[in-house]
Amino acid sequence: MSGKRTTRLTPDQRREQLVGIGLEMLADRSLDELSTDEVARRAGISRGLLFHYFDSKRDFYRAVVRAACDRFTAATEPDGTLEPVAWMRAFISGFVVYVLEHRQVYLALVRGAAGSHPAVTDIVGATRETLARRVRDGQRRLGMPDAPRLELASRAWMAFAEEAVVNWPAEEPGAQDELCAFIESSFVSLLGLLDRPGVLTPR
Amino acid sequence: MSGKRTTRLTPDQRREQLVGIGLEMLADRSLDELSTDEVARRAGISRGLLFHYFDSKRDFYRAVVRAACDRFTAATEPDGTLEPVAWMRAFISGFVVYVLEHRQVYLALVRGAAGSHPAVTDIVGATRETLARRVRDGQRRLGMPDAPRLELASRAWMAFAEEAVVNWPAEEPGAQDELCAFIESSFVSLLGLLDRPGVLTPR
Repeated sequence: MSGKRTTRLTPDQRREQLVGIGLEMLADRSLDELSTDEVARRAGISRGLLFHYFDSKRDFYRAVVRAACDRFTAATEPDGTLEPVAWMRAFISGFVVYVLEHRQVYLALVRGAAGSHPAVTDIVGATRETLARRVRDGQRRLGMPDAPRLELASRAWMAFAEEAVVNWPAEEPGAQDELCAFIESSFVSLLGLLDRPGVLTPR
Repeated sequence: MSGKRTTRLTPDQRREQLVGIGLEMLADRSLDELSTDEVARRAGISRGLLFHYFDSKRDFYRAVVRAACDRFTAATEPDGTLEPVAWMRAFISGFVVYVLEHRQVYLALVRGAAGSHPAVTDIVGATRETLARRVRDGQRRLGMPDAPRLELASRAWMAFAEEAVVNWPAEEPGAQDELCAFIESSFVSLLGLLDRPGVLTPR
């Protein structure tokens, strides 16, 4: 299949094809296990030709991770004209659906964020920053109190939501609705308690 | 310094010394970066002698991570005779103080838990399971509602608490008390909302 197809794709289409193959392969392996030999083989081209489109293995990894992060960012961007509660729900369900559908890719990136793959730390970090900003945007839209620790709390809430979604039994009937409701509740209760710490008893 | 000291330590003391050096070194590097050559050098023994006490690099890594996990587990075990609120506070402040004081070791292990170091996944996993059981124990002691998702929620709460502690500005005056209060609030609000999802508006 390779010969003719190779000449028919434009450079942009070829790059897109290779990145797409990389994204598919991240579904069952970590970034470290992503072999450019295997990517080239699946595309029906030589490894040498792959490196005609990408400067290095690192460059290819970065392109794959950037594509995954762009999709994640797009999936979690609500229509800005929605009213606050609907906006927040759209953000949360976008987050839940993306992570459920791309659980393995998400884990591969979270692993990266935790420091195991320095080649993509900046891309993953910037994506997490975008998401954290969106959390704070939602919090402001809902009229919840601003607080000095809001940025930190937003990131901690994201860690909570990630862990919940990644481990949720998504195959059970109704599980996705229940998960979205749980994450919505946590958003309100966690970010809403910043101005009233110490709820167990007065300290 | 090495010669005499080598003969004076018992095998158990020597193993303890080497594990202690490994723990210290995890303060500024990941498990993958922990060089047994460097450990042996710091102990003033040969690399060969290190492997007299540990079967392999993997065996040494496991001993170091087991020691770190044992300390973490011990630091977060409250006196069982405390009344519920005091028990929960002791658990949370043990968690906060340990993670603040061993931030880098903790990150090195979290990285491990996220999948980057298969040699210790079982040890870190068992430790996280112990902690999650303790969260559920605290929740029962406080008389909070039991729920089908409690185990999952406990793990998500731990991810929240980890992220908050690791990023908290610990050097600010009063920051540690504020952090403990914040984590306590989150414990009550997150685990208390399992029986009332959907707090934004009725669904």
